[in-house]
Amino acid sequence: MSIRVGIVGISGFGGGEALRLVAGHPHFELVHAAGEGSAGSRLGERFPGLPARLAGLVIEKWDPAALPALDVLFASLPTGHSAEALARVPAGVKIVDIGGDHRYAEGWAYGLADVWPEAIQGQRLVANPGCFPAATLTALAPLLAQGLIEPGSIVIDAKTGISGAGRGGADSRFGFAESNENLVPYGLLKHTHMPEMATTIERLSGGSAAGLVFTPHLVPMTRGVLATIYCRGQATTAQCLSAAREFYAGREFVRVTDAPPQTKWATGSNLAFVSYAADPGRNLVIAMGAVDNLGKGAAGQAVQNANLICGLPETAGLDGAPVWP
Amino acid sequence: MSIRVGIVGISGFGGGEALRLVAGHPHFELVHAAGEGSAGSRLGERFPGLPARLAGLVIEKWDPAALPALDVLFASLPTGHSAEALARVPAGVKIVDIGGDHRYAEGWAYGLADVWPEAIQGQRLVANPGCFPAATLTALAPLLAQGLIEPGSIVIDAKTGISGAGRGGADSRFGFAESNENLVPYGLLKHTHMPEMATTIERLSGGSAAGLVFTPHLVPMTRGVLATIYCRGQATTAQCLSAAREFYAGREFVRVTDAPPQTKWATGSNLAFVSYAADPGRNLVIAMGAVDNLGKGAAGQAVQNANLICGLPETAGLDGAPVWP
Amino acid sequence: MSIRVGIVGISGFGGGEALRLVAGHPHFELVHAAGEGSAGSRLGERFPGLPARLAGLVIEKWDPAALPALDVLFASLPTGHSAEALARVPAGVKIVDIGGDHRYAEGWAYGLADVWPEAIQGQRLVANPGCFPAATLTALAPLLAQGLIEPGSIVIDAKTGISGAGRGGADSRFGFAESNENLVPYGLLKHTHMPEMATTIERLSGGSAAGLVFTPHLVPMTRGVLATIYCRGQATTAQCLSAAREFYAGREFVRVTDAPPQTKWATGSNLAFVSYAADPGRNLVIAMGAVDNLGKGAAGQAVQNANLICGLPETAGLDGAPVWP
Amino acid sequence: MSIRVGIVGISGFGGGEALRLVAGHPHFELVHAAGEGSAGSRLGERFPGLPARLAGLVIEKWDPAALPALDVLFASLPTGHSAEALARVPAGVKIVDIGGDHRYAEGWAYGLADVWPEAIQGQRLVANPGCFPAATLTALAPLLAQGLIEPGSIVIDAKTGISGAGRGGADSRFGFAESNENLVPYGLLKHTHMPEMATTIERLSGGSAAGLVFTPHLVPMTRGVLATIYCRGQATTAQCLSAAREFYAGREFVRVTDAPPQTKWATGSNLAFVSYAADPGRNLVIAMGAVDNLGKGAAGQAVQNANLICGLPETAGLDGAPVWP
Repeated sequence: MSIRVGIVGISGFGGGEALRLVAGHPHFELVHAAGEGSAGSRLGERFPGLPARLAGLVIEKWDPAALPALDVLFASLPTGHSAEALARVPAGVKIVDIGGDHRYAEGWAYGLADVWPEAIQGQRLVANPGCFPAATLTALAPLLAQGLIEPGSIVIDAKTGISGAGRGGADSRFGFAESNENLVPYGLLKHTHMPEMATTIERLSGGSAAGLVFTPHLVPMTRGVLATIYCRGQATTAQCLSAAREFYAGREFVRVTDAPPQTKWATGSNLAFVSYAADPGRNLVIAMGAVDNLGKGAAGQAVQNANLICGLPETAGLDGAPVWP
Repeated sequence: MSIRVGIVGISGFGGGEALRLVAGHPHFELVHAAGEGSAGSRLGERFPGLPARLAGLVIEKWDPAALPALDVLFASLPTGHSAEALARVPAGVKIVDIGGDHRYAEGWAYGLADVWPEAIQGQRLVANPGCFPAATLTALAPLLAQGLIEPGSIVIDAKTGISGAGRGGADSRFGFAESNENLVPYGLLKHTHMPEMATTIERLSGGSAAGLVFTPHLVPMTRGVLATIYCRGQATTAQCLSAAREFYAGREFVRVTDAPPQTKWATGSNLAFVSYAADPGRNLVIAMGAVDNLGKGAAGQAVQNANLICGLPETAGLDGAPVWP
Repeated sequence: MSIRVGIVGISGFGGGEALRLVAGHPHFELVHAAGEGSAGSRLGERFPGLPARLAGLVIEKWDPAALPALDVLFASLPTGHSAEALARVPAGVKIVDIGGDHRYAEGWAYGLADVWPEAIQGQRLVANPGCFPAATLTALAPLLAQGLIEPGSIVIDAKTGISGAGRGGADSRFGFAESNENLVPYGLLKHTHMPEMATTIERLSGGSAAGLVFTPHLVPMTRGVLATIYCRGQATTAQCLSAAREFYAGREFVRVTDAPPQTKWATGSNLAFVSYAADPGRNLVIAMGAVDNLGKGAAGQAVQNANLICGLPETAGLDGAPVWP
Repeated sequence: MSIRVGIVGISGFGGGEALRLVAGHPHFELVHAAGEGSAGSRLGERFPGLPARLAGLVIEKWDPAALPALDVLFASLPTGHSAEALARVPAGVKIVDIGGDHRYAEGWAYGLADVWPEAIQGQRLVANPGCFPAATLTALAPLLAQGLIEPGSIVIDAKTGISGAGRGGADSRFGFAESNENLVPYGLLKHTHMPEMATTIERLSGGSAAGLVFTPHLVPMTRGVLATIYCRGQATTAQCLSAAREFYAGREFVRVTDAPPQTKWATGSNLAFVSYAADPGRNLVIAMGAVDNLGKGAAGQAVQNANLICGLPETAGLDGAPVWP
């Protein structure tokens, strides 16, 4: 089966990773690529390692009214740039929005694919979770679903590689010279990913996420998100691990590990690694989730969502092992 | 005034940084260097950029019974290696132990120099704080001293550069290939720095630190420690900043900043940067502290302590601005 | 078709990358893994992101006399450790030696697969080129074959990521703290890769490589080799590019680019990128080659060689696009 | 003695490093700082680790006609931006131009301070060498001066950290995500530093540098320049080392080492490390020079030049040991 695929936002890191995954997908045929900065170039000029059969495709200027016939469109646009434009995409085109505009928007399924695959299957419009929520919620879901932690007092200390700032965001703060050998907390008490996480925590637990705290940090690495999450709860480490293993039984992309997860375990893959350490005597559960911010945190999860809405095996095009070291 | 100084542990990163600072100190004269791996070499072979006047000094095998006449000894030995040996140092030699064996040991002052300088002045034996405690306690001290946070529910999410693992600890986990592009939580619920932090929190607050949580992470950078600390308290951000500014008024090495502190601000210096973000509505205070783990977290603070016990100006040899970028 | 594959040296970086590629190969079935440091572990403990079907395989102690039935063995052992041992592998097993012991050894084909595929097809024993030769010779081959440069006066300035030092070589020189922010020339005028390059240059050109100069440098990155090669010759840039495009016409893994090649273009792939800049007025041709030292420089080329000796399509299991950024 | 100093270009990396060195200089008093992007800010907002006595100085808009009374001005402006403006600086102000506009310009001394200190003493206008020339020429000078190599066939393979691209040059190519784990040759056969190097080679040797080849590479590190230089000559390694030791006898900032020099040896200092490896049988001399591109390659050398023109000890403010690791 061949599914006609387009990607908009091909100049960015998320769009580029979607391109890599689509290029290796057994059922997807890339027929359209659109970008802002790179319109007019051939794909091979921008991505010198692309397979030869795709290198000649010309990048178009993004125009939702002038799309070729497509089955699926991946949109990876900066937050604020996709809401209006995607509304003009013809109704027959399925859309996975990697950007931030449609998370919990009306008419859009929330694409936390390892947790709610059934809610995504058969949908036309899917909003991909953000990279921080992908790491965080994958780790928390089993605990919340089984009532092992209190939803109202969750503290998320999150760390991201610098590709998370996006390619357009390349001011000197994200330049190598200023980023290397530096560690930067930012966006305290007001990050844009908070509402999405609060809503999902409430959906998973049935309780209020009112006390949610989220602190992101920029780490000098290209890829990777790690969330270290402090919760109140009476479960033991073994109970948490066991709950997660049960919750994700049969799910291909979530690995529950005894050791604390490392971001490099996930590089280049759609995997999420989760682990737990608890001390009931202190009413404490620490949950940890590690993903590749461009994999499970963006394009990997987007392809998984596309597989779900197209009725393909969930792992199609996503079974490559991570790149290590 | 010339003070005769020795350094033991010169092969390690802490000892090497002590050497750099002693070399630039206006009152210290290095007369003795001892090391394990490097005994027999000249200092200039190990440290090609050292000033010529020091390059010829031969590194000795460490023997506390065979020291030359010294005023001050800096000891930077792996934890477990200094307790017995330093007891054999002649009684006339002042000692600053950068290693972990004497923190809160009997007869040793705890060298948190920016907080308790008076308790260090005139002492003979000073135990330098660990690198994580240096970042953490400097940020917490004003809040604890003024009762702005509850001492019993502190969660410390700490991140360190890889020089923190020490030079001897160079197995492949700390090799470039496995460390770069990786982020690793470790030592959950059982790190060796916890007792030192708990004791200090209690000393500062008068209350129990029973609920202390501490999670260190390895970050792919050479230097730097950042502690992001989640506390319960009703203070506003402005109150926390104001308390810290008052607490550290006149103290040269602590900078209270409105923006979240970045580790690179401190590189190569003895500075500590602290900041705060609070939300009384959620009973939440976030404290942040950033230091160079080899500066304020090791050799910088050690020189500051040596200045204090020798009656020198606290900033002698420590007034260089950080290296940036 | 299913081909039974073994890997020895699974604890090292080359063996690990072979594992990743074998895991994604459509015709290879991994039935045996052997290692020194990791014997007794399951593969999944060492490689947490490995597909579940392989995670349970137990790593064996390396014993050439106790191999299961195999079609192909990948050997990735330190130089000096494979000559004697591989001689004891049963005669029915094809071997690709990623290590250095059999390059231009009697009975072994030299596996510069993009240049001499026909000489590899149908062989039983193939010696994989070293990582520096892979980058260098791929760039030089078209010029040498067409007589565009003089073989006797070639200067190779080569740069490698730190995984090239191997995992066993993890002393503190290769530790993150000492390697990061550092650039180190080494092995001047005596690197072990020189004879292999000289022999190949002579084989390609028919002339003597007597004047060969090779200077490797350690660069603070995990993967990647770049060779910048200074030659005497009268060709123009356009002639060199054209010669290379003709030489590699129809070859899947070599990309001839107008712009100077970057190592990151190749990361995670078996691609080699080559380009040229020439100034006939100065009798100068600069050739450049960039590869992933673990891809085309080790495991990628090894899988290509295995494909050739097994009669498979050369690209089987090797068609993934590089990971960027 | 107090010398009134100004810095223009304070927002850039070169200007920032000049600020750090001026702040620690025993005879310089910073009275003026000017910048483009940062005008109106206080220095302490831009450089949070600056000594308190300088933190309050307000950064001015750069206007050569509105300078306060100054003894020395350090100019660190992008190439092309200083020629016209510096001509309008009052005649009583000494100028060290770190930028590229005045190298070998009429009326300006060329500030290769370790080689020609006497030609700089007492001058009013000094043009600082570029970072690549600083590393290259320091290594070559002894060989050229003593006729040990042929000036007409020099091949320079140079590698720089990414701060060399400047702070203003922060497009996504210099962003962390695209630079990390990447190695990029650029500017082949046409770099702007070539004329300066050719002129100096001719000045040192009396011969023509007509065959000069220079290839720069971007390396994923913040600071550091290494030049690996291939020359024709009959000298032995010992003769080259000996010539360099004699040439630089009594010079504080050049270290001649037996081992190949590493960039990290120089970080944060004004030192240059040079070494040599030769093979008379192949008519080959390899010279190597390593510097900190912001130290000896920019601000360090600029302060050395300012010391020379002000009649101060050459090492004033420059005697700090390098930061390692």
